[in-house]
This record gives sequence, C-alpha cells and structure tokens, in this order.
Amino acid sequence: MCCSPPHMNTHVQNRTHPRAMRIPDSFRTLWLLKKLGLILGLCLGVVLIVSRSALLESVLPSLKLKSPLLPTPEVPTLSLLPQQQLRGLFSRDKLWLFPKNQCTCENAQSQGGYNFRKAYKESDLLGVDARRHAEYKHFQRREGLPQPLPLLAQPNLPFGYPVHGVVVMPLNTIPIPGLRFEGPDVPVYEVNLTATLGTLNTLADVPDSVVQGRAQKRLTISTSNRQLLNFVLQHVTYTSTGYQHNRVDVVSLESGSAVAKFPISIRYPVIPKLYDPGPERKLRNLVTIATKTFLRPHKLKTLLQSIRKFYPDLTVIVADDSEKPVKIDDELVEHYIMPFGKGWFAGRNLAISQVTTKYVLWVDDDFVFIPKSKIETLVEVLENTELDVVGGSVQGNTFQFKLFLEQSEAGDCLHRRPGSFQRLDGFPSCVVTSGVVNFFLAHTERLQRVGFDPRLQRVAHLEFFIDGLGSLLVGSCPEVVMGHQSRAPPTDKELAMLEKNYSIYRENTKAQIQFKLALHYFKNHFQCST
Amino acid sequence: MCCSPPHMNTHVQNRTHPRAMRIPDSFRTLWLLKKLGLILGLCLGVVLIVSRSALLESVLPSLKLKSPLLPTPEVPTLSLLPQQQLRGLFSRDKLWLFPKNQCTCENAQSQGGYNFRKAYKESDLLGVDARRHAEYKHFQRREGLPQPLPLLAQPNLPFGYPVHGVVVMPLNTIPIPGLRFEGPDVPVYEVNLTATLGTLNTLADVPDSVVQGRAQKRLTISTSNRQLLNFVLQHVTYTSTGYQHNRVDVVSLESGSAVAKFPISIRYPVIPKLYDPGPERKLRNLVTIATKTFLRPHKLKTLLQSIRKFYPDLTVIVADDSEKPVKIDDELVEHYIMPFGKGWFAGRNLAISQVTTKYVLWVDDDFVFIPKSKIETLVEVLENTELDVVGGSVQGNTFQFKLFLEQSEAGDCLHRRPGSFQRLDGFPSCVVTSGVVNFFLAHTERLQRVGFDPRLQRVAHLEFFIDGLGSLLVGSCPEVVMGHQSRAPPTDKELAMLEKNYSIYRENTKAQIQFKLALHYFKNHFQCST
Repeated sequence: MCCSPPHMNTHVQNRTHPRAMRIPDSFRTLWLLKKLGLILGLCLGVVLIVSRSALLESVLPSLKLKSPLLPTPEVPTLSLLPQQQLRGLFSRDKLWLFPKNQCTCENAQSQGGYNFRKAYKESDLLGVDARRHAEYKHFQRREGLPQPLPLLAQPNLPFGYPVHGVVVMPLNTIPIPGLRFEGPDVPVYEVNLTATLGTLNTLADVPDSVVQGRAQKRLTISTSNRQLLNFVLQHVTYTSTGYQHNRVDVVSLESGSAVAKFPISIRYPVIPKLYDPGPERKLRNLVTIATKTFLRPHKLKTLLQSIRKFYPDLTVIVADDSEKPVKIDDELVEHYIMPFGKGWFAGRNLAISQVTTKYVLWVDDDFVFIPKSKIETLVEVLENTELDVVGGSVQGNTFQFKLFLEQSEAGDCLHRRPGSFQRLDGFPSCVVTSGVVNFFLAHTERLQRVGFDPRLQRVAHLEFFIDGLGSLLVGSCPEVVMGHQSRAPPTDKELAMLEKNYSIYRENTKAQIQFKLALHYFKNHFQCST
Repeated sequence: MCCSPPHMNTHVQNRTHPRAMRIPDSFRTLWLLKKLGLILGLCLGVVLIVSRSALLESVLPSLKLKSPLLPTPEVPTLSLLPQQQLRGLFSRDKLWLFPKNQCTCENAQSQGGYNFRKAYKESDLLGVDARRHAEYKHFQRREGLPQPLPLLAQPNLPFGYPVHGVVVMPLNTIPIPGLRFEGPDVPVYEVNLTATLGTLNTLADVPDSVVQGRAQKRLTISTSNRQLLNFVLQHVTYTSTGYQHNRVDVVSLESGSAVAKFPISIRYPVIPKLYDPGPERKLRNLVTIATKTFLRPHKLKTLLQSIRKFYPDLTVIVADDSEKPVKIDDELVEHYIMPFGKGWFAGRNLAISQVTTKYVLWVDDDFVFIPKSKIETLVEVLENTELDVVGGSVQGNTFQFKLFLEQSEAGDCLHRRPGSFQRLDGFPSCVVTSGVVNFFLAHTERLQRVGFDPRLQRVAHLEFFIDGLGSLLVGSCPEVVMGHQSRAPPTDKELAMLEKNYSIYRENTKAQIQFKLALHYFKNHFQCST
C-alpha cells in the first residue's frame, strides 16, 4: 500500500474532511428523525428504516471511493444501531450526551428550566440578537474559535512524524522530534516541509544542493542518500517568527504524493503564581476568610465572634455596601466600604480581589462557626487533590449539583441535575460535582480567574459555578459543617427594623430575575436551561 | 514498508522516545561547551570538534538501528552546523531562543538584572527552596505538568486516524473521525482500539462475533470483510467516563504489529462572558475608567475634572486607601474605601473587580486628560484586533518593553528588552509588545483573569505584565496621549505637606525591593532576570 499511485492518496485526502463534517450531519438527521419518531409513535419502524438508509448514504460514498481496493465484490448489510439504542448507550441523567448540531431544552418549564430568550421584550430581540452575535464573533476571534476540523492522517505514509504535543514559545525555535522517511528506494529522494506561521530549518551541516529554503516557510531536502535524508530530517527545526499567543501551525511533510500533516502549538507556559506558606505552615499563612455584608451588622458581629472562637488569628476580609457601615473592632478584620447597595457579587468580587494567601474561605455573613467547621479538613483536601474549590455543608445542606452543557450554534443548552459525579479519590467522604453551597474553600488564584460577576446585584449563586464551568474543578465534603444563624424574626425592635429593611433589598424582584436570565442569554450565549 | 516485520515496528517505537529526549541533552552539551569555548578562547576550534562528535553520538545510535534498511553501505559525513552559527540562526535581542535544560542570566547585574535567589537570607534558602519546590509540584499537578513527551507516528501505518483536534466534553461521547484500515489483504482482519481514561464503542449494528468490548476500554473488531471492518471503524465512538478537566487520553489503534496512537482532549469549551454594549453602543456602556488614589486628593480632583471635561458621562471607579479619604462629589464616581495603606496593587485589583463594562481604562491619579487622550481610538483597536490590552503614551513615554522567557528546571530566566515585536495588523501606528505604560485600555474579563497581585504593596508595574505573560496580548498606540500633572513641588503649604507625607509611602524601601525580588523567585518560580 506504501506504493499506492498518486490519485489514491489525493482521493484519500479529499475524502477525509467531507467525512469528518458529514458525521454530525448524519446524527442531526438521526436526531430529527427521532423527534419525528416520537410524534408518529406507530410509524417508528418505518422511520428507523428511513433513518438507517439516510445514514448509509452518508457513509457509502466514501466506501464507493474505496471500492477499487475492495477484495470482495458482494456488499454486506451495513447499518447502524437503532437510534433508541444509541440514546440509551450515551445518556446520563436522561440527557443524550452526544454531539448534535442543535439542542433544545425539552419541557424546560416543567423541569423548572427557562428559555432565556424570553427574558427580552419581543420588540428588542432583533437588536439583541444582532449585538449578541457580533460580541460572540469577537469572543471567538480572541479565543481562536471555532476550532478547525480534526487533522486526519492518511494510511501508509512513508513518514515518521510527531502526532501531537510539540509546543514552541512565540519567537522561539524547537527541534521537531521523530521526523524520518521510510518510503521505497528511489534514485533521488525529495522531501518538502511547509509551515504557515513560522519558518523551518535544519541543524544538519549539509550543502545547499541538499537543503534549500533554510529559515523559510518551505524547506526542500533532496539527496540520493537515504541516511543523509534522515539525518537532515532528524534535525529539522521550527521557528515561530511572529509574536502570537495560543495559535496552532500545521506543518506538512510531503514526498511525491504522500502528505503528512502535524500541529505545532505556539504558546507560553502558564506562569506560576505560588504562595509561600511560611516555615511553620501556619493556617493563617494559608487561608483568609472572606465575606460580604449588607445592612446586618448584628449578623456579621455574631459571625466574627464565632470565627474568633475557633480561629483567633485568621485574617477576615469584609466587603460592606451598607448605607451606614458599622466600624468593626478587630485588628485582623480588613473592612472595605463600598458605595451603598453596590451588590452581592460586586462585594464578593471585591473581597476575593484582596486575598494574599493561597486559599480563601467563603462564608455568608449570617453563618456561624461551630466545632465541625473545620477549615483544616478542607485545606487537606485541596492540598492533596486537583480540586480548585471544595464546599462543606451548611446545617446539613450541601447544595450539590451537576451541570451539563449541550453545544449549539444558536446558543448552548444548560442542564442542572442534583447530586455529584463521582467519589473524590483519596477522600471517600467527599465527591466531585459542579456546584456547592455558599461555604467553600477555594484556591485563591483559580477563584480570582473566574471571579464573581459584579453585574449580578442580588442573590446569585448558580451563576458563579456556571461561569466557572470547565475552569474550576469542584468538590464537596459534607462532613465539614457550618452553622446558620437563626432565621427567626428577632424580638429586639431595632434588629427587627434592620431585618425588614434588609429583606426589601435581598429578594430578587421579577425584574432582577429577568435580568439574570437575560444575562445567561447574552453573556454566556446560552439559549435555555433545564 | 507497509509489510515490515514485527520487530521493525517495535524498534521504531522504542527508538522514537529516547530520541525525543536526547535532543535537548545534546544541546545542553553544546551549550556547556559554548561556555567552555568562551573561557578557553583559543581552544575554540578543538571545542567545536569535540562538540560535533558529542552530538554525533546522540544521533548515531538511532541511525545504527536503522542500518539494516540502508541501501548504501558507505556512510556520508553527518555533522551539525557549528554552534556559533546555530546561535546566530536562532537568536533575537542577543538571546539564544532555543530549548536548553538550564538557563542563566549572564552578567545579569551589568544589564540591570537580578539573581532573585539572592533576595533571601542565605540561612533561609534551604527552607525556602523546599517550600518553593513543594508548591511548584502542587501547581504542576493542578495544571497537568510536565507535559508528556510528544506523540510520534510510525511510518507506513496501515491506518487512517485523527492526528489532532478531537475534543470531548467530560462524560460526553464523540464519534472518532477518520478511522480506517488499508493494510494488506488477510483472511481475517483483527483491529484493537485501547483507551485509558474513557471507553470505546461503535455505532455499527454488527454481531458480537465482529465487535467485542463495547463500552469498555478495549474494543476488538475481527472480520474477514474489509468493507465491514472499515464501516465499523468509521463509526467508532469515544466516551469520557470520569468527570475530568483538561486531560488528554491517548487512544491506540493496533493491527498485528502496527500501532497508531492519537490524542483525545477531554475539556469544556470556554464559557463566553459577553457584555452588551446596548443599542446605541454608547462609550459609557463600553468603557469604565479605573484608578487608585492614596493621600493625594488634590491630584485626584484634577484628574476627575479633566475626565469630566472630555467624558462627562463615563463611570469612574476610585479605589482609595488614604488615611482620611476625601468625599468625592460626582454621581458617576464610585468611591471605594480601603483599609489605610493597603497598597498599590490591592487598590488596582479592587478597582478592576468592580467593572461591569466590556473594557476598562486604567489611569494613575496624577494623570490629566488632554485632547489627545482619545479613549475611542483605543476601543477601536481592541474591537478590531486580538489584543487584550492596548496602551497609549504618557507625555510621550510609551514604556514599551518585550519579555522573553527561558525555561529551566531550577526556575525560568526572564529577559526584558525595550521596544516592540512587530507592527499591529491594521493599525500602522501601533505595535505588539509585552508591556506598556500605566495608561491602557483592557478587555475587562481578560484583565480580571490575570489581576493585580495584592501582595505588591508599593510601586509595581512590570510585575503585572509578567503575571500576564502568555495570557494577555499587549499592544501600544503612542498616538493616544495622556497628560501628567506637574511634578513640581506645590507652593501651597498644605499641599506640600500632603506631597511630603505621600512620598514617604510611595518609594520602594530596600526591604520592599527585596520582597519583590523574592516574590519573583517564589511566586513566579523564576531564578533571575536581565
């Protein structure tokens, strides 16, 4: 096969991409037909036959192309598993986690879900969608999206080459490992390498008659000596010539009709941001407590007193957007005064922006530390796992939930399900999940990377974990318990007044909820949730 | 070659990895010898000969292995370019940007550089290094470092397969594109696929006699019909079975002695965080101005007045850690009061944590807006390029600098050079660089991801761009000019007092500078700079 004639290789190459694209299409067909199937109940059998033949069409052309190679003339029945069975195979929490060209949130309402688009006035939608599209395109450009189609290798290529994992820093040079030619003997070997973003060269000391195009985008090696050819190939280098971040160059390696392509990633390593825990590794050098308060100095006072009872020397950061902030008499409390009513997440984001320790513990101002509120346990978990965030429970409530994403052109579909994914390795009483309660320890630097969106003024919680989806690995250890201060209306008149005043602001108004849903539609480019 | 006997393939495979590793080693040798060369001036010739043979040794073994394949018995002289020439080829700003196992900052002092390790007391270093190493290891674990050796493809594999770019979300399933077999005809074809982190399956509806191990880590296909084999391969799926972030599974595809390996990336897409510029795309819905002030209300007042002269309706965020903050009489200024003397970067980080527009403009409190301070121009640049940050000039000073990184086990070497890398596409008067002056417009969400490290209490600037290296793409447009308030000592007695008081805090004490250097050593895991 190594000696397959030119037209074969080109066929092979032309064939691969269309197919790579065709696969999702065929499943879109499947998926559409499935909906049909549901509606037409009885006709399911028919539908399946149709769908199978539809799929065959998407497969057969490529097989036809291959037919000259086929040893057997008779065609076996080629069919795919019935779609019902496919759904069963690749479903979790009743979600079919398989690529589709579009997603919907079936009976979203019934599952307490939302169609985010409905958060906007019908009359505004035209303009909103245009702006959302434009901003999304800008976002994609910055992130280098959409990703190119997968790079497919042809069979029987006479080359050795790196498939994956070659990385170069901008403007740097790297030797390309693993390049060699093992094709058939010919009088003169000619091999061409071509790059797009950078240039190629070889460390081999050979005359220009052997190597042409040094330090250019196209390097040509021609020699009658296979050993020399491989020596040159073994020492080919790639040089990033433009200052670029997070780009992928595709280098092609050609000899006659054989073409191999491989990626070279242009990027910097992640710059570490380490924290020194100090010689004795004291807790106060590892953890800062952060909270946000609003109009409830009495609750905050109770919280702070409970903290001092168990952790007398920990630094506490308080973000306060009360109308008349009450001075806090504690040297280890850093009190930040915000404009009145600036908001829930603005305060949280302010608090975490001031942390200078490796970890930060988030608590609400109406919590109260109890003997089971063991910060050390949570530190132990983050120190010995890859988790970025680990929550405890607040009076037995862990608020664990899982998030699933279905991608779609028009906007992704978000699905929330209660519970966790799996046990946490090494900590049998903890689990891995997507979101937890408002009592959690987080790796400061990772938390700051996601942040709390200051656009969210009122009660918001889920929103933070949605923003962190994919960048924060979250766990939950229910054995670490935080107390909650009494929710009973205080008897003291003055306190009752404060509570009443507070409650006016705390609740999400209908407008606030609409705002949040609209934010998911525009900011996160979602379309709906269940 | 397609029919190469088993032992060949295994040889090929065994050979590739050692070589991938050997390359840097040979250059370490080169590099060491180079130093030798410098010292031994006259002996350079000799050194070169030695170094060449040293390199040959690193290359020849692999060639020896290949010798059975060689058509020609006589061995051509295989040598590498003289190292002086290599250095010339791959150098920029007098830096040899080529992978080495270690780096040094030659004559760091003379170039205004530092050996960061010296920032610590000799007696503390043992403990510091141990902690630094432990924290670095934890960081690497979280980030999945060090990266595995590049994956190398063998020549003449009878398979088609995806080389790069197959991505699956955690717990999701994807069809693997491009799989096919085009090896020689045999009575019965047997192909095995093996995964590590997930499971494999096929959508093809075929009996268990043909496909074994569905939904397991090892899938076996055996059939006498090549067409059926390829149909099954075309519809193989990969399912992520554990909830993991940013992991790469390597799937191997085997038939007889032929083995192809390809990567599947397990990760979530980036969740967009878009900002709605509003129907009229007003500047006030796109840009927020942020500043930090300390003990200089008069300077701040002048700045704010100048802002209102040109931008009456922009929101301004002021972070203030003065002893007695002076109330600001401007409805569109958000004034945040911090604990006294909390610090330079703490205040900056606070300010940007409160921004709710797509862009944020950073200015110092002693700047003054002038007609050339055109924010719109900077917005234009960020909207139409991939830049994350674009600076202007402050009274003609652009403070452009380039950062280069040399990686090393013991800690990276950082090199700063004045100037820029290249012109900015589409904006001939702007350039791409690594760092700019304190007057810049930034994409809020990207800026927040990097943040200003609140550990830096006093004057710090370079530090921010170092933390952003690799994550922020920075540009500079000198045509947008910011004014600077007079540095002349004020005649007014009271103001003179304020200035005097301020100057006490502003300057970096020797201890502060030591602290910064120590931070680079520990936090960034650097060893030195030039």
